[in-house]
Amino acid sequence: MNESVFNLVRNEHLQDKIVTAEEAALWIEHNMTLGLSGFTRAGDAKAIPMALVERAKREKSLFKVNVFTGASLGPEVDHFMAEAGIINKRLPFQADRSMRSKINSGEIVYIDQHLSHTAELIRNEVLEEIDFAIIEALAITEDGMIIPTTSVGNSAIFVQQAKNIIIELNVSHPGSFEGIHDVYLPAKQGERDPIPLKKVDDRIGTAGIPVDIEKIKGIVVTFQPDAASTIVPPDEETQEIADHLLTFLREEIKAGRLTEKLAPLQSGIGSVANAVFHGFLDSEFSDLEVYSEVLQDAVFDLLDAGKIRFASGCSITLSEEKGQNVYQNLDKYRDKLVLRPQEISNSPEIIRRLGLISINTAVECDIYGNVNSTHICGTKMMNGIGGSGDFARNARISIFVTKSIAKHGAISSIVPFVSHVDHTEHDVDVIITEQGYADLRGLSPRERVQVIITNCSHPMYRKQLLAYFEEALERGGQTPHVLEKAFSWHTNFAKNGTMLQEEGQLTGKH
Amino acid sequence: MNESVFNLVRNEHLQDKIVTAEEAALWIEHNMTLGLSGFTRAGDAKAIPMALVERAKREKSLFKVNVFTGASLGPEVDHFMAEAGIINKRLPFQADRSMRSKINSGEIVYIDQHLSHTAELIRNEVLEEIDFAIIEALAITEDGMIIPTTSVGNSAIFVQQAKNIIIELNVSHPGSFEGIHDVYLPAKQGERDPIPLKKVDDRIGTAGIPVDIEKIKGIVVTFQPDAASTIVPPDEETQEIADHLLTFLREEIKAGRLTEKLAPLQSGIGSVANAVFHGFLDSEFSDLEVYSEVLQDAVFDLLDAGKIRFASGCSITLSEEKGQNVYQNLDKYRDKLVLRPQEISNSPEIIRRLGLISINTAVECDIYGNVNSTHICGTKMMNGIGGSGDFARNARISIFVTKSIAKHGAISSIVPFVSHVDHTEHDVDVIITEQGYADLRGLSPRERVQVIITNCSHPMYRKQLLAYFEEALERGGQTPHVLEKAFSWHTNFAKNGTMLQEEGQLTGKH
Ligand SMILES: CC(C)(COP(=O)(O)OP(=O)(O)OC[C@H]1O[C@@H](n2cnc3c(N)ncnc32)[C@H](O)[C@@H]1OP(=O)(O)O)[C@@H](O)C(=O)NCCC(=O)NCCS
Ligand SMILES: CC(C)(COP(=O)(O)OP(=O)(O)OC[C@H]1O[C@@H](n2cnc3c(N)ncnc32)[C@H](O)[C@@H]1OP(=O)(O)O)[C@@H](O)C(=O)NCCC(=O)NCCS
Repeated sequence: MNESVFNLVRNEHLQDKIVTAEEAALWIEHNMTLGLSGFTRAGDAKAIPMALVERAKREKSLFKVNVFTGASLGPEVDHFMAEAGIINKRLPFQADRSMRSKINSGEIVYIDQHLSHTAELIRNEVLEEIDFAIIEALAITEDGMIIPTTSVGNSAIFVQQAKNIIIELNVSHPGSFEGIHDVYLPAKQGERDPIPLKKVDDRIGTAGIPVDIEKIKGIVVTFQPDAASTIVPPDEETQEIADHLLTFLREEIKAGRLTEKLAPLQSGIGSVANAVFHGFLDSEFSDLEVYSEVLQDAVFDLLDAGKIRFASGCSITLSEEKGQNVYQNLDKYRDKLVLRPQEISNSPEIIRRLGLISINTAVECDIYGNVNSTHICGTKMMNGIGGSGDFARNARISIFVTKSIAKHGAISSIVPFVSHVDHTEHDVDVIITEQGYADLRGLSPRERVQVIITNCSHPMYRKQLLAYFEEALERGGQTPHVLEKAFSWHTNFAKNGTMLQEEGQLTGKH
Repeated sequence: MNESVFNLVRNEHLQDKIVTAEEAALWIEHNMTLGLSGFTRAGDAKAIPMALVERAKREKSLFKVNVFTGASLGPEVDHFMAEAGIINKRLPFQADRSMRSKINSGEIVYIDQHLSHTAELIRNEVLEEIDFAIIEALAITEDGMIIPTTSVGNSAIFVQQAKNIIIELNVSHPGSFEGIHDVYLPAKQGERDPIPLKKVDDRIGTAGIPVDIEKIKGIVVTFQPDAASTIVPPDEETQEIADHLLTFLREEIKAGRLTEKLAPLQSGIGSVANAVFHGFLDSEFSDLEVYSEVLQDAVFDLLDAGKIRFASGCSITLSEEKGQNVYQNLDKYRDKLVLRPQEISNSPEIIRRLGLISINTAVECDIYGNVNSTHICGTKMMNGIGGSGDFARNARISIFVTKSIAKHGAISSIVPFVSHVDHTEHDVDVIITEQGYADLRGLSPRERVQVIITNCSHPMYRKQLLAYFEEALERGGQTPHVLEKAFSWHTNFAKNGTMLQEEGQLTGKH
């Protein structure tokens, strides 16, 4: 055994367990359920999934497995395993084009879950039993703890509940990641103590995942960095959204409801949320705290700029450039960072206690403030609800951002009735588009319509939205609707390629 | 001062504050915001609301107030104040026919909220400032604590945040209610400790609501019992729903996921939920625990039968008969009961920690498991979401019950697309109708359709539901839909008086 690997597998009982990915892949049988480490492309098991893909190509017999993870994984699983046709069931989140198309065709059974729920369902034995947990690790300590890498995700519950464990010891990650994690696993419901976390930087658990080493069947040594994040940089509209967010926050301070330090911030996944977070860079705000799920580029830019005091998350997903920079200087972030299991980063208990300001991205919103985060035109899955429901329901201020139009204006992101509801009017406090923001707190549905149309919808769709609402108003009700026309915008888009009722109004922009 | 009243107002500084309801009503000005005690007709302020109604009849000038409460109140507020036209804004819940019609016509501005959210919004100064808290009390202690009566609701936060307080000292309630309450108010978000409750019977607060006695402007002595609950007794279908619930629970025990003691139970408001809870009476289950919101007749029947060991709630709402019985024998329940503020009874933190089995009633469900709890045909408000969202999102097992048809079969309660979404597919684990139960946990949307249609829909609508799904399937997607027909069932009902596509299929039953 190579000396450096020897330093990483510090428990002597484990040192003869090293196998190749190909050997380990042979242990996995048709119909088994795998619990894979990884959250938004970070810290995911990579070698064994690829070995499974290769094995499936070689062997001709039917081979499919269920894949449970923290969230979306890198291409090895969500692209190549999906393409190879070896995934039966997938949960709780994905964000890959190939997998998405197999989900929408019905080939992959996809269970889209609140990211804080999966661990409870596993603990309560509601889901399939996990045959193999495959966990990427930085090291295994003397006393048999797995030190995770760039994410914690659901790894701790997988390790606790799985029948067998395989470790992917990935030596591409800097050793200084050790000490950044804080692993706390709640006991069973009904036997559980309050989660003792009171501040974003509290450490309440252990530096790694406690493991019964008898369950570790093998260790595969790999050297493969995480796949880089695919987010696109800020553009004019996301900059405008960021500006409106800052204006809203300043108004809250003026009203005496927030102080200059704001409240711990959560920001969702994707390009829009990342760009909006970037907006704090040129703002007067500093000493900010982050209590979020995935930490994207913007968080590290803000740490670099001294704007963020401390960031808590459950994974780190960076662009190639930012990634190199961060990993080479990890020591500088060590005392400003913690990574937790996703049932802690997304815990309703903690989100409510800390009083987060949460910022997530909508696919579309309706005039009453309901939000669709997942289904394009009501039917096709984009990614999944992710943690947005954990945060939106429990945050102190729940903000949703979106551009007011998509596809060069053929689609209005503000519609009469969202074609799928992920977040109800009760969980949406503020909507922000590049047009402005709508503060919906304390407003009745009819009152919300006015602010949303006026402040957030694109001018090209305003008249059309108002016309719908006026017709609906004639019928009355707490939430007036013209049900036979509620989805006409979506069906028009399907038929005519645009939600616009009159032709020839498309802008060249977007 | 009458001696018995003297015994109830035990703080000498307050003993000269006694006024009539008419005098107190004169303090209240147009456009003020009132925070009224009361939760589901229990423990509500009664005398001053009626004095306001009388005053409004006498005076001809414009007079309207905002009314914030715990949940629905008795007729004094939600019927007579509504009828008198003196309510401008109402939140967070109501369940009265008159108020409902004024809400749906747009005359009353109604903000339908998660019942655990209102206190946070008040604490964070997002809603209108409360000019007067009007709180029904059993007594005021020497050290200036208000002892509530049959509910705690939002009274504690109203007392803390209001500019002025008026007490309605209601001497109709038995004195032995003292000691049943447990008042715990979380600190501000971000400065808050974990809520230390770990078992349904833990007492974590004070026996009454701490009050700054300087704010108490007057005390009105009244003698008026709570309005009795209006729930209707179990019928054949609700009995069948209860049976299916018991079958489901037995299956969970068999699968090793629950023990005979089950887990703390929550049961929603209304006739159906009460009837279903009744089903435990003839079951083998005993030693049950309840951690719920309103405690209805069924809970006391189960306490009487020795089936329930302990019940925690935030109000007690009983039928006339059961009420008399319970209040005359209150001592017998003293050590088996606790009433808490609704932000504790409905706390996501506690619901998740205890791992509740929660049972709420749906107006309608769709084939994918989304639930409408509030809006008849998508537009007309029935009651409100109440606490159903607090429980459904955080419970260990979230169950929704409904009869499979309404209005003698003219309405199917299982539809292709619910006309309003209160609870998304992510928050609905089990649906039960008189036809059977659908266990949706771990199922993808397409898989859910089969179980819901087969197990839960009424046979008269099954073919029609399957036809919709088959047409939808041809278009594909994670959640297949025929958007232009998604609400056709509701529009057919509006046009033809039935959701049935072929005439002449109505049953005589229901
Ligand atoms: C909503 C979500 C998809 C947005 O992602 P994003 O990268 O910020 O958004 P973009 O504006 O780039 O839009 C993504 C795509 O959706 C399309 N789109 C946006 N709005 C649309 C609409 N109303 N109708 C149809 N398509 C739409 C865009 O055109 C773009 O399409 P493309 O990939 O073909 O270019 C993403 O945030 C998400 O999956 N959210 C749900 C999970 C979540 O919120 N997790 C956060 C918890 S931490
Ligand atoms: C959903 C809810 C209205 C059901 O109340 P209930 O008294 O148990 O139910 P019922 O079966 O008696 O139905 C109430 C009415 O709705 C009607 N109804 C039921 N299903 C319907 C449907 N799908 N479409 C239209 N009307 C329907 C019934 O016919 C009945 O009408 P009526 O009053 O004219 O006779 C009630 O539980 C509620 O308000 N829930 C939301 C709040 C909540 O869940 N709180 C619990 C947290 S503790």
